Amino acid sequence: MWTGEVKYGMDVNVLLFPDFETLDAFGPVAVLGRIEEYRMCYISFAGGRIVSRQGAAIETAPLVNADAAEVLLVPGGQGTRRLVEDQAFLGELHAISMQSKYCLSVCTGSALLAKTDLLDGRWATSNKKALDWVKSMGPAVRWVDRARWVVDGKFYTSSGVSAGIDMALGFVADRFGKLRAEQISREIEYVWNSDKDDDPFS
Amino acid sequence: MWTGEVKYGMDVNVLLFPDFETLDAFGPVAVLGRIEEYRMCYISFAGGRIVSRQGAAIETAPLVNADAAEVLLVPGGQGTRRLVEDQAFLGELHAISMQSKYCLSVCTGSALLAKTDLLDGRWATSNKKALDWVKSMGPAVRWVDRARWVVDGKFYTSSGVSAGIDMALGFVADRFGKLRAEQISREIEYVWNSDKDDDPFS
Repeated sequence: MWTGEVKYGMDVNVLLFPDFETLDAFGPVAVLGRIEEYRMCYISFAGGRIVSRQGAAIETAPLVNADAAEVLLVPGGQGTRRLVEDQAFLGELHAISMQSKYCLSVCTGSALLAKTDLLDGRWATSNKKALDWVKSMGPAVRWVDRARWVVDGKFYTSSGVSAGIDMALGFVADRFGKLRAEQISREIEYVWNSDKDDDPFS
Repeated sequence: MWTGEVKYGMDVNVLLFPDFETLDAFGPVAVLGRIEEYRMCYISFAGGRIVSRQGAAIETAPLVNADAAEVLLVPGGQGTRRLVEDQAFLGELHAISMQSKYCLSVCTGSALLAKTDLLDGRWATSNKKALDWVKSMGPAVRWVDRARWVVDGKFYTSSGVSAGIDMALGFVADRFGKLRAEQISREIEYVWNSDKDDDPFS
């Protein structure tokens, strides 16, 4: 358990890595970016240009320079398959997850969080197509087979890709009230699946 | 009417500009990026780093160097408000729209297409919250008040932000068959609104 004192800023640290799934990151960003208090910060292990699975090259700051944030957002995607073996990355992910007030993951991003052991004993979910693999990355995690997203303490884990938008709206509802979440869903003309247990893809 | 001969590649040119709405671009990219034949190319008027409304800095190639593409994708967002007055940009947008086999716009991206006069006499739509302004940008366009997205010839125009995902799936259905669109919607765990006339936000 983290017992150090942290002064949280109102940043959202969006953690990118090579071959991340573009919408896993930018779906939640579309929601969280409409909270006036939040500032989006794009970070990666070593900083520099990170290319997504869909070929978008995004400029990032190094993870070690990131401020203690209100939110850490961890997307999933093909790139997670390599990172679950990368001890240096996982060590930094552990540190920044401890320092973040809330940790949100999308799709196979929960496999990365699981590998830090911070989800051990907690309820969590992931993409239903990749669930067997994700489960194998965290045997001590209480994986939920049927959920659009799962909340356990400061950890929000969502199902695949576009489920991250539903989860981000759910996070906004929990943190700022359901009216604000509904307002944002109207602004982005998104039909919000607001029931985290309603999972059409399990 | 364009009568020149164009040899289309299978590129998707994603046209970015300062203050574009991040999800307007990356929602459709999540769909089109799963078509194996397509290569995503990120371009902007002058090339270089383009920062979205949500602070994502994306590396782009100059528009003039772009190959004739199968698809041109034009997002919307706050940045369109300045660009509708930018004759140099609109001239280039006109040229690349002519050269593209299909032109897809999201949200207020249709205001930019309207300013090229290429939508004159055609059916089109846009974000319902910004529709009055968008209409004023194209008095000769046949604007549709109630539609998730509209198809007229090679032009696909969608409603706000997340409507671009529905439109992109609709485009895939038209071009590659509905089964492929449904398969992609399952892969990204997205509940596809497949009826382009079903507009919950009008």
